[in-house]
Amino acid sequence: MTSVRLRIDLAYDGEPWAGFARQPDRLTVQGTLEGALTRITGQPVASVCAGRTDRGVHAIAQVVHVDLDRAHPRVARATHDLEVLRFRLDRMVGDAITIWQVREVGDDFSARFSATERGYRYRLVDGEVVDPIRRHDRWHVGEPLGVPAMRAGAKLLLGEHDYAAFCRNRQRRTTVRRLDEVTLTRPQPGTIHVRLAGPAFCHQMVRAIVGCLVEVGLGKESPDWIGEVLLAQDRSLAARVAPAHGLTLERVGYGRRYPAAPPASGRRGGAD
Amino acid sequence: MTSVRLRIDLAYDGEPWAGFARQPDRLTVQGTLEGALTRITGQPVASVCAGRTDRGVHAIAQVVHVDLDRAHPRVARATHDLEVLRFRLDRMVGDAITIWQVREVGDDFSARFSATERGYRYRLVDGEVVDPIRRHDRWHVGEPLGVPAMRAGAKLLLGEHDYAAFCRNRQRRTTVRRLDEVTLTRPQPGTIHVRLAGPAFCHQMVRAIVGCLVEVGLGKESPDWIGEVLLAQDRSLAARVAPAHGLTLERVGYGRRYPAAPPASGRRGGAD
Repeated sequence: MTSVRLRIDLAYDGEPWAGFARQPDRLTVQGTLEGALTRITGQPVASVCAGRTDRGVHAIAQVVHVDLDRAHPRVARATHDLEVLRFRLDRMVGDAITIWQVREVGDDFSARFSATERGYRYRLVDGEVVDPIRRHDRWHVGEPLGVPAMRAGAKLLLGEHDYAAFCRNRQRRTTVRRLDEVTLTRPQPGTIHVRLAGPAFCHQMVRAIVGCLVEVGLGKESPDWIGEVLLAQDRSLAARVAPAHGLTLERVGYGRRYPAAPPASGRRGGAD
Repeated sequence: MTSVRLRIDLAYDGEPWAGFARQPDRLTVQGTLEGALTRITGQPVASVCAGRTDRGVHAIAQVVHVDLDRAHPRVARATHDLEVLRFRLDRMVGDAITIWQVREVGDDFSARFSATERGYRYRLVDGEVVDPIRRHDRWHVGEPLGVPAMRAGAKLLLGEHDYAAFCRNRQRRTTVRRLDEVTLTRPQPGTIHVRLAGPAFCHQMVRAIVGCLVEVGLGKESPDWIGEVLLAQDRSLAARVAPAHGLTLERVGYGRRYPAAPPASGRRGGAD
């Protein structure tokens, strides 16, 4: 097969989908994207993604790759002009998914395995009220959170650890990960952003960490408790995971060889 | 009647409602707010608002007043602690409406007639793509807009004029208004914000103005055309009104005697 590998950079509103990953009889981001590619090329298409997000989680910078057989005339036509393909795809997948860019990559590039860094942002509102038009991507905790205590707890998570206490569905795979960044900021009164970055994350690790940080921010637990949960490697000690809709996959890094999609218009600024 | 007048500052996501104004058998912001107040007080409640927004239009700073009869025991109880009343109301009206503040005002205050300034913001995206989670409050024009030409056209609208060409449903009432501000900014690449302010606006005036500015920005009309439309006072000459979901009522001013609600937590910054 004269195969061509395409890298697709996309964003989505997590709300309308049963998560990223394809499922029979459910509307998913992956299923919708693959379905559109199949309608365009006439070929079955299977995609590989950088970070499988759960139901309700948003992405501003998800990355996917697909292999297509260029020997097929409809594939050859569709991949002739990749900006035209991007435009058609973007139309077909509807308003809740945006296709930033489609480009050809070598077959040594994997959206999943070539990724060296994943970055997430979790939005918290600790004011009494939340702007209703912005309620879809932030968790309204509704009680004041102590950011210094949360920062002290977050610091204990940095570096390489066994994050078993913060992972779901481990299925006997390793839960050792490296966390390079957990930063808390207040972009405006009543709002806290938690940014997390590392080479890879376990299932629900970000939401489990944020859930614990909120307990500390509320004063129900001390910052040191975060370290105790981590060391105990026992998920039952951790807090409930933070709701999915506050979380956004914000960055996937592949090193210098594969740069990110150029800053697309209408893309969110960090301050928001 | 020992009446008490309450001023209510609120925000709403315009999407789920058939507009602000009460309508039989339709879900509206006003109907929902009045219904909640009636359930709390046991009394029929009629409200007066600063700016009746159309279906789909959002508000970050709407103002309403209501009169309640304090002689009624349930009203006396409900108005005893206005922060408790705010909290109850906020709960009852659901996620798509936020009650920022409830306070007692003199009966010389009218949410509608005491207002000296109304401020709106219209969000345009002229990049090829739009962040899907932010698509609910901006119009995705999708073609590059020339801001300098739009600014030149906007300038011709400032001051006191007969805005008949930009008004719907005039019903023989005057369409003379004063426009104090039409400012265009690019908070980020691909995004344009149009801010408009004046003592009062006709029905759909903001959306009609933005519709015409977009024609100019696309190069379909010259900036001077805006002045011609204004002078002709003929609505059929103007462009189609811009879609409702790009518009947000952002500010209602009452002068120094009646300050705005304090910056509420989780409230949008202008840069977004």
